[in-house]
Amino acid sequence: MTDTKVYLLDFGTLVLDGYMMFWGRGPSGPFRFPCYGVLVEHKEGRFLFDTGYSKDWFDQNMPGLAQQTELQTVPGQLARIGLRPSDITHVVNSHMHVDHVGGNHLCTQACTLCHKKELESYKQPEIWEAHGYADRTALGTAAPDASPATPEPDDRVQDIVTPRFELLTGDNEIARGVHLFETPGHTPGHYSMMVELAGRRPMLFTGDACYTKRSLEENIIANAHTDVRDAHTSLQRLRDLAEQYDAELFYSHDPDAWRDWKPAPAHYS
Amino acid sequence: MTDTKVYLLDFGTLVLDGYMMFWGRGPSGPFRFPCYGVLVEHKEGRFLFDTGYSKDWFDQNMPGLAQQTELQTVPGQLARIGLRPSDITHVVNSHMHVDHVGGNHLCTQACTLCHKKELESYKQPEIWEAHGYADRTALGTAAPDASPATPEPDDRVQDIVTPRFELLTGDNEIARGVHLFETPGHTPGHYSMMVELAGRRPMLFTGDACYTKRSLEENIIANAHTDVRDAHTSLQRLRDLAEQYDAELFYSHDPDAWRDWKPAPAHYS
Repeated sequence: MTDTKVYLLDFGTLVLDGYMMFWGRGPSGPFRFPCYGVLVEHKEGRFLFDTGYSKDWFDQNMPGLAQQTELQTVPGQLARIGLRPSDITHVVNSHMHVDHVGGNHLCTQACTLCHKKELESYKQPEIWEAHGYADRTALGTAAPDASPATPEPDDRVQDIVTPRFELLTGDNEIARGVHLFETPGHTPGHYSMMVELAGRRPMLFTGDACYTKRSLEENIIANAHTDVRDAHTSLQRLRDLAEQYDAELFYSHDPDAWRDWKPAPAHYS
Repeated sequence: MTDTKVYLLDFGTLVLDGYMMFWGRGPSGPFRFPCYGVLVEHKEGRFLFDTGYSKDWFDQNMPGLAQQTELQTVPGQLARIGLRPSDITHVVNSHMHVDHVGGNHLCTQACTLCHKKELESYKQPEIWEAHGYADRTALGTAAPDASPATPEPDDRVQDIVTPRFELLTGDNEIARGVHLFETPGHTPGHYSMMVELAGRRPMLFTGDACYTKRSLEENIIANAHTDVRDAHTSLQRLRDLAEQYDAELFYSHDPDAWRDWKPAPAHYS
C-alpha cells in the first residue's frame, strides 16, 4: 500500500442551473462545475474511478453545457502521466450517469466494477431516472476491441462495458486500502470510494452523493435523486466515514474545492 | 347529494422559481401561481378543503412572494357568499404545508380532518420536509375561542387545530359523494378530494399531488417531495381516478387553468 498513488484527472466542466445542483435551494443562475476522474495506481492494478463525459454527445444533445479540450479526456489525461487507456485494469463507476461513464469503453483491457443495482437502473431506469443515464449515443462509438466477455443482451449496456464486467453489492475493499462504500439516493447503486495512502489522510471521493462542500454543510442533496431519504442518509454516512477514518472529503462537482486540489500529472501518495 | 354546491375560494397568489414548481425541469424564472380553497356546501355539513396562507407570515419571512388582498382570505371569500368562518363544520387539509392551512384556526366551530401520517410529519418533519410545514408564526394569532377540545401537547399543533380534530387513514367518503383519495409523495399524508355533483362531472381536486396541467401531461412532480416514487404513483392515480369516474381535474397551483374556472360567488352544482 505504501506505493499507492492517486491522480485527479481533469475531464472538463459542465454547467447547470443552481437549482439543478442544490435541491430546493438554488440559487438560480448558471453554475459551472468540474467533472473529474480518479486514477489509483496500486500494486494490485490501475483503478480508474469515473471516466467523465463525451463532449460530442453534449454538443449534439445539450449544446452549450460542456467545456472540454482534447486534453480533458481519458486519453488526454492519462497521456500526461505516460499511460494509455489500455493500461487501465479496472474501471470503477460511482454510478452510471452520463457524465461519469463517458470514457468506459476506451479502457479496452479493463474490468468494470459497479453496483448490481446501478446496472439494473441503467438498463431499466424509472421515469425520473432516465434523463441521467446515457443512451447509446452518449458514449461515442464503442472501441473496436470492446467485445464483452460477459454476455449482455441489452444494447444499452454494450456501449459502456469494458471487456469484462463485475457486479458488486455492499461495501467492498476492491484492493488493499481501496474501499467502496454504498451511498445510494442520487442513484440506487451509488458508490463512494476511499483510498488509504502512506503519506497522508485517506482520500474519500464522495461521487455524486455529495456535489460540493456546501451540500454537506447545509445538508443539500443533488436535485437529481431517486430516493430522498437514502440521499440524506448517504450524506450523513459520508460525514461519519470522514470522522471514523479521519478522511479528507473530495466532492464530485465543487468548483471552489477543485481549485485547491492538485490535478494530474501531480499525485497524492 | 343533488343540492351539493362547490365554491372555489380565491386566496391570492404566491411566486416561486420555475424549478421549485417543476422538479428538474423548470424553466428558471418567476412563476406566479394561485392558492385557493374549495367550499363544499353539503347537506351533511360545510366542508372547506384547504385554507390558504397568512400574508403576514410571508411578508415577514419570505417578502415579495405573496399577493393577497383582504378579500382573498377565508373571511373575505366566505363573506362573498354570505358566510362566516364559524359556519364551517369541517376543515379538510390536503396536507399541512404553510400555504394550505393558514386559515384553519379561523374556523372556530369546525372539526379538522387530515391524514394521520400528515399530522405526524407536521409535528416531526424530516429535515427535507421542515421548510414546507408552518411554524407557529406562519398561522397568525390563534383565534381567541380556538381552544382545542382534542388535547394536543405540541405547540405546533395548537395553532392549526380547530376545536375538534379527526385523523383519517386510507381513502374516505367523508360525506355522501365527497371522497378523499390518498395521494402521497409531495407529503406523506396527502389527500386529493373528489366531489360528485348532480349537474356535472365529478370535480377532482388534486391538491399538491399535481400542481398544474403540464405536471400531469409531462409527468413532472412538485420540486417539494418526500418520496419520488410515491409522488409519481400519485400522479398516475389521479389519471386513473379521472378516467374511472369521468372526473374533471382541478390542479392546485395552475395559473392558466385558474383563469378558466369560476371563483366564488359563482358555484358548481
